[in-house]
Amino acid sequence: MAVRNKKVVLKRHVTGYPVEEDMEIVADTVELRVPAGLKNAVLVKNLYLSCDPWIRGRMSKHDDGAAVPAPDFVIGEALVNYGVCKIVESTHPKFNAGDLVWGMSGWEEYTLVTQSESLNKINHPELPLSYYTGVLGMTGLTAYSGFVEVGRPKRGDTVFVSAASGAVGQIVGQLAKISGCYVVGSAGSDEKVSLLKTRFGYDDAFNYKSEKSLAAALKRCFPDGIDIYYDNVGGAMLDAALLHMRHGGRVVVCGMISQYNLEEHDGVRNLVCIIPKSVRVEGFNVGNYFHVYAKFEEEMAGYIKEGKVVVVEDVVEGIEKAPAALIGLFSGKNVGKQLVALA
Amino acid sequence: MAVRNKKVVLKRHVTGYPVEEDMEIVADTVELRVPAGLKNAVLVKNLYLSCDPWIRGRMSKHDDGAAVPAPDFVIGEALVNYGVCKIVESTHPKFNAGDLVWGMSGWEEYTLVTQSESLNKINHPELPLSYYTGVLGMTGLTAYSGFVEVGRPKRGDTVFVSAASGAVGQIVGQLAKISGCYVVGSAGSDEKVSLLKTRFGYDDAFNYKSEKSLAAALKRCFPDGIDIYYDNVGGAMLDAALLHMRHGGRVVVCGMISQYNLEEHDGVRNLVCIIPKSVRVEGFNVGNYFHVYAKFEEEMAGYIKEGKVVVVEDVVEGIEKAPAALIGLFSGKNVGKQLVALA
Repeated sequence: MAVRNKKVVLKRHVTGYPVEEDMEIVADTVELRVPAGLKNAVLVKNLYLSCDPWIRGRMSKHDDGAAVPAPDFVIGEALVNYGVCKIVESTHPKFNAGDLVWGMSGWEEYTLVTQSESLNKINHPELPLSYYTGVLGMTGLTAYSGFVEVGRPKRGDTVFVSAASGAVGQIVGQLAKISGCYVVGSAGSDEKVSLLKTRFGYDDAFNYKSEKSLAAALKRCFPDGIDIYYDNVGGAMLDAALLHMRHGGRVVVCGMISQYNLEEHDGVRNLVCIIPKSVRVEGFNVGNYFHVYAKFEEEMAGYIKEGKVVVVEDVVEGIEKAPAALIGLFSGKNVGKQLVALA
Repeated sequence: MAVRNKKVVLKRHVTGYPVEEDMEIVADTVELRVPAGLKNAVLVKNLYLSCDPWIRGRMSKHDDGAAVPAPDFVIGEALVNYGVCKIVESTHPKFNAGDLVWGMSGWEEYTLVTQSESLNKINHPELPLSYYTGVLGMTGLTAYSGFVEVGRPKRGDTVFVSAASGAVGQIVGQLAKISGCYVVGSAGSDEKVSLLKTRFGYDDAFNYKSEKSLAAALKRCFPDGIDIYYDNVGGAMLDAALLHMRHGGRVVVCGMISQYNLEEHDGVRNLVCIIPKSVRVEGFNVGNYFHVYAKFEEEMAGYIKEGKVVVVEDVVEGIEKAPAALIGLFSGKNVGKQLVALA
């Protein structure tokens, strides 16, 4: 049976800030089955699409051999990212029709997934399925592996999180409290700052847009310095944080959303501070931590059920709204985890 | 008995590049004994003074609470740094008159050392004593602890060292070869580049002053990327190296000599590369590694005796020449470990 398949395709490679016109909604038709003879594949109906800053990199054209986390998107083809899906038909022994899964899928209504090893069964369908685009999916694992495995928190550590109400930041802050740390977040609106303190349990928070000096704000919030800076933004905030790290401090570099749309990146001038203070600045990629996913999923599902971790999502409905939702990430329009509900 | 004591004192705090006139040679007289009643002190005759870039920081005036590796020098008082000394009189049970030691002493002929725990006995007086300002002292321990403990080399790793013929760099390169790595160094003259290849066993080397593009030079020397960058210079070289790190690479940030005399530090623009490649950039301070000194001293003395580590020193004679020798570090005038012989 052939059905209509609406999709978000890349219309042109992006330089600078992406705009809606870089993408296009098109429709074709798709057979609701795996093509005859294709083994280990699944045809999925996409339920939720995740909007994440990191896919901005895939919208540009890179030189061959450039260090990129994943290949460039192809013009005219659907964008690809983590999503939550229901299996329509499977030729993979691990999956059956009707299974709920999360993993790499297309920005479209139906996707034929041939690399189906990248899909994961949803083990807690009693929780909101959309959580598997976020707190129980790649985003949550990013927060967890970066904070726990790279940051190596100790009880009593002081922790700073930027983009702290965002998909990753909101979870890092709550994990920091669970770990017995003192945690301060920055965000880009008073509404988000309020959310940090009232919903996510941050000890303190500030609106970086209304501070005259980021360095002064950090000095006010951390008079004795920062043990762990979980960096989601890079640029000027990273530069200010480097001035305030404590001896033996760790900068967990998860993302640099302030930099992704710049043709020339901002210069970070305070790196010299890492020498006398023996600070470690470590970039990390969640792709290296999928081996801890099973442990993470159980632990995080427990926190959610106990109310120790709460989740704020920003949900738009319908694939037509996906381009605007993605672009909104770069101006901080979203409040909490941005996702698109399809079905 | 009172004798003349010539010394190098700080005349004024330094901004920008230091000049000889920032220091002054003065003389007073000193009694050749520990003052009556002062326990755990030693009076030493200084034999060799070490010239190291890091003391540039102590020549400036810093705000209270600034993150500095050691306190600012005091105007009118002798500079302080690692040196090799002979004990004239001791009230410390660990030391006797005649003992040869290395550690923190003054830039003068005789020094009363009250924090004598910072002095270390010289266990290999059969080797040149001057080596205890360098390869067997703080410099060697810096090379060793940074490369081994922070860089964690594996056989077959590709290693890049900047300021590679300098006091630290020349030892890092030789340790890299001993560890089975492929090692390339940069230096600031053709003479130094030749030294790297003919004396220190570097696999390749380049003169950074005659390269049009540092990034292109690194790509030429490391077509498959860099596993460990041992950074002694910071700035533009660090920025270029970040582009060429391999997945899981380590940047050992030992020093940033290109930055110490700048009022505003250069911006490092390529930090974003550390995310997809999971690169660790770690500042370190040799002061955290004195617990491995005893092991290091034996290992390094063995390498020297076996001819596996060779040392090139740049020695000036007489305390009057100390200011110019120190300043020469910042223009790369020295070839190898810069030191001042006093006696």
